[in-house]
Amino acid sequence: MKKRMGRQTVMFRDPPVIIGSATIVGPHEGKGPLRDAFDVVKGDQLLGQKSWEQAESQMLQEAALLALKKAALEPKDADFLLAGDLLNQIISANFAARELSLPFIGLYGACSTMALSLALGSLLVDGGYASRAVCAVSSHFDTAERQYRYPTEFGAQRVPTSQRTVTGAGAAILAEGGSQPGPVVTHATFGSVVDLGVKDPNDMGSAMAPAAVQTLWQHLEDTGRTVEDYDLILTGDLGKIGKDLCIKLAGRSHVDLSDGYEDCGCLIYDMEEQDVHAGGSGCACSAVVFLGHILPQIRAGRYRRILLIATGALFSPTTQQQGETIPCIAHAIAVEGGGGDSR
Amino acid sequence: MKKRMGRQTVMFRDPPVIIGSATIVGPHEGKGPLRDAFDVVKGDQLLGQKSWEQAESQMLQEAALLALKKAALEPKDADFLLAGDLLNQIISANFAARELSLPFIGLYGACSTMALSLALGSLLVDGGYASRAVCAVSSHFDTAERQYRYPTEFGAQRVPTSQRTVTGAGAAILAEGGSQPGPVVTHATFGSVVDLGVKDPNDMGSAMAPAAVQTLWQHLEDTGRTVEDYDLILTGDLGKIGKDLCIKLAGRSHVDLSDGYEDCGCLIYDMEEQDVHAGGSGCACSAVVFLGHILPQIRAGRYRRILLIATGALFSPTTQQQGETIPCIAHAIAVEGGGGDSR
Repeated sequence: MKKRMGRQTVMFRDPPVIIGSATIVGPHEGKGPLRDAFDVVKGDQLLGQKSWEQAESQMLQEAALLALKKAALEPKDADFLLAGDLLNQIISANFAARELSLPFIGLYGACSTMALSLALGSLLVDGGYASRAVCAVSSHFDTAERQYRYPTEFGAQRVPTSQRTVTGAGAAILAEGGSQPGPVVTHATFGSVVDLGVKDPNDMGSAMAPAAVQTLWQHLEDTGRTVEDYDLILTGDLGKIGKDLCIKLAGRSHVDLSDGYEDCGCLIYDMEEQDVHAGGSGCACSAVVFLGHILPQIRAGRYRRILLIATGALFSPTTQQQGETIPCIAHAIAVEGGGGDSR
Repeated sequence: MKKRMGRQTVMFRDPPVIIGSATIVGPHEGKGPLRDAFDVVKGDQLLGQKSWEQAESQMLQEAALLALKKAALEPKDADFLLAGDLLNQIISANFAARELSLPFIGLYGACSTMALSLALGSLLVDGGYASRAVCAVSSHFDTAERQYRYPTEFGAQRVPTSQRTVTGAGAAILAEGGSQPGPVVTHATFGSVVDLGVKDPNDMGSAMAPAAVQTLWQHLEDTGRTVEDYDLILTGDLGKIGKDLCIKLAGRSHVDLSDGYEDCGCLIYDMEEQDVHAGGSGCACSAVVFLGHILPQIRAGRYRRILLIATGALFSPTTQQQGETIPCIAHAIAVEGGGGDSR
């Protein structure tokens, strides 16, 4: 009967199944090492739209529709859309929601939104409030740059700690446990805000790493598990610098991440060849890497059980200009192949 | 056992109790007809902070702490914070969440956020995922004006259809059904996006009215209820023009709103004396009117059962400049005095 474990973790009694997923990426991501993992690689950043913002919303909508299609469903077969993105007033999600016509829960967790939406979607399904839920996010290099930093046309030089916002969208369809075979979401750990005082919006990895470690530590504390219980711990978009810091900070809490730990932001691009500085970031980063690259390996039995910890930096250009530090959050979900034990 | 009713409505089996609530408003709201209904009336728009944004976040945090205090609780006694606001990247909620240190679900539903957060919070509590949840929102006239329209220092003339963003914050504490006496949330109807093509950001009431009617109609359809089953139908912030349109549109669907229907945006200010044009708006509008003015009347038995329908306009200045129409949404919750039947 017990659904809560410790302070921040929910254990699903009837773990929801990920019955379908879809990933769409932009051209730069399509040149990276994971190019074959994605369902669709777009040839340009505009997708035939008049603005990058329209293109981003279009990707989110396409990803949701494709995920539904791969699960042999239509939009009307789902009970909820849980979606978000990085843009002011989450406009990519809002405009996609208009086209999908589903009961819509708009989320903002910055780059942690895919994990937040899967966590909350799992809860809706596990609790019997939805038979099927669509969880989706997007991000776009050009829309994010012009909103958070400089318009890309300006050609500002980027510092080595900066990360490249992934152009892409990911969507997953969750369904009632036992309804179909497939990977299941067994636990969700909802993060609380962590802020160690980092102020530099060009060094998100360092800002977010402490939140990732806090959520990992809390997840292990709440569940009584160790990192060895997971074949893979996967952070969302810490990038090279944040990943190193994450390993260091985890070590201080006696959690050894030297083995079986990856970061989506380090996997999506060729860090030597693709001029992406510290790696990838954005809501779509963890979404497309987890759904496109990792999930098939869970389906294939290559990973038995993984923990996705997606991090988000909850600042805005306004708070940055006002001299505030950057509050960060990390939400985690435990996913395993169907039929595994869900201790 | 059945938790879903029809397409968009959830029926709570064990209706969560609103065990505490708090409302804080700014000086203009403190001069309005509901001044005595609010817990705190601030003397100025800055609250001793350096920026309006900091002041807004401060109000959200204070409202959450006061609501907890009124329920004889501390932050650590709650399992979740569900919060949002109108600002880019919901910074008011994020920075308040940093201080409250609770597992945090960031929501964006524009001015519908209070109903969304109460709907989702009720679901977490009803489902056994939380014993107590804090649901909170804020808005601020000066932060909203400079983000969505013109900085207030500019002194732009406002058109008659425009509404005044309420400066304020509201918070409610939800707890397990039966744990304490008090008003309970029996149903939640999650809205889908409605967009009839309105483009004018100075006429939000007309843009949002169709969403309110759609959600009302769907709620009645899903539950088999009629408007006569409610002592009061309360929309969030349609204002004078939106309210009239709502009555007209409902009439076309054979739903008679000529009696027992109010709008928070029309109640919060003296429409003749306070120079607020079409009325109040903002996340805090429905929050402080519902929690401060209506909830005590439910507790006192003056209202037996009410339906709060909070509406949101899901646009951004970017989408407006790009010529997009305004997608709108409305989320509804049914609230009744403890002990009532929850058909």
